[in-house]
Amino acid sequence: MPVKKIGRSALEENNLLAAELKKLSQYRGILATNLMSSPGSGKTALLERTAELMKGTHKIGCLAGDVETDRDAERLRKAGIQAEAITTGGACHLEARMVKEPMLRMADDGLDFIFIENVGNLICPSSYELGESLRVVLLSTPEGHDKPKKYPKAFHKADLVIISKIDLVDILDFDLEAAVAEIKELNPGVLIFKTSAKSGEGLHQWVSYLEEIHREVLAEYYESQMDELA
Amino acid sequence: MPVKKIGRSALEENNLLAAELKKLSQYRGILATNLMSSPGSGKTALLERTAELMKGTHKIGCLAGDVETDRDAERLRKAGIQAEAITTGGACHLEARMVKEPMLRMADDGLDFIFIENVGNLICPSSYELGESLRVVLLSTPEGHDKPKKYPKAFHKADLVIISKIDLVDILDFDLEAAVAEIKELNPGVLIFKTSAKSGEGLHQWVSYLEEIHREVLAEYYESQMDELA
Repeated sequence: MPVKKIGRSALEENNLLAAELKKLSQYRGILATNLMSSPGSGKTALLERTAELMKGTHKIGCLAGDVETDRDAERLRKAGIQAEAITTGGACHLEARMVKEPMLRMADDGLDFIFIENVGNLICPSSYELGESLRVVLLSTPEGHDKPKKYPKAFHKADLVIISKIDLVDILDFDLEAAVAEIKELNPGVLIFKTSAKSGEGLHQWVSYLEEIHREVLAEYYESQMDELA
Repeated sequence: MPVKKIGRSALEENNLLAAELKKLSQYRGILATNLMSSPGSGKTALLERTAELMKGTHKIGCLAGDVETDRDAERLRKAGIQAEAITTGGACHLEARMVKEPMLRMADDGLDFIFIENVGNLICPSSYELGESLRVVLLSTPEGHDKPKKYPKAFHKADLVIISKIDLVDILDFDLEAAVAEIKELNPGVLIFKTSAKSGEGLHQWVSYLEEIHREVLAEYYESQMDELA
């Protein structure tokens, strides 16, 4: 019989809490999504456009992580999103314990979607689960097609990769085919969308994908409600 | 009398080693420069163009830090730079202990400049000195003018900020004036250059700046040689 391990690593503690938060949001019929990317890849712009397209049909919340400032949360509120800033004060990634309180508050607000906009960093955030049911990584075309293998963990663990700022692809030396091949090599089953918050390309595909996953979460939610009644 | 502190933090250890490496490179008449930025801001492209402009006049080495792959080192070697890859295998920044051995090797090679291309990350690398005499941060126009205050430490501690991909400024919503004002607010004395590896804009200013700082390092180097002879 293996000796019982006493104490857990910080990462194990994080992921246990994350699993609880995931259960909680699913139990409330909320789709929680963790958005990760380098600084300036367009996470906030994507959410602004998502809010426009979902206006009147879905209620959206966002936890906006940043080292300093609440600029993203402010932009998101202007776009009609219920947003809270999580300022890490130096830390390079969000952890489940930082997300917990605001997520619990939001879970009571009848939201359909909670987006967690992680700190702009393609490395550290990928190690920390935050309670998400969906993990999305953005790669913007100006960053270059050679980035996936240079930052493999983020791409390896993603459910969906969004190649953003696709409107710039023709004026940059971005090899779309090479980028897609590299992402697929790291993560064969991953979905890849191409979007532009500027031209609107790919945004309907993104929104309808979110709605589809949300329907699955809801189906499970209704099932659990039925089980409780039975 | 204060109690003597036993043991040092990892960061203190790092910075002590960095101070030694700095002395060593200066003692050899080498200008060591630490280049930091988000992924895909153009650190490698800047060095490729720097090598072209310095060809025949200066000898350049580069330590290219990456989480995975030696792609940057390979690109730099093709550009005529003596390059070594430092693959951190997951770590999100370079530390002085990772730089030490390759830097010592390079210091024996009669180089004028050693560039340390840090891991693409605008947060963690700024805490770790690597033995540089010059600390440069790149902000590429596609990342957006709002980034300095969101990632203040990197900009606060820089000697020089390079606004890269300046050729894209007119087709993006990048407010150059706002970016400059924000950088100056964080770091009033900092120099700011605007460059494009594509159009060549600002590259001569960058190279002549490097040459000027290198002359200062050399002057100190000659002085120390004279002191030794005296």
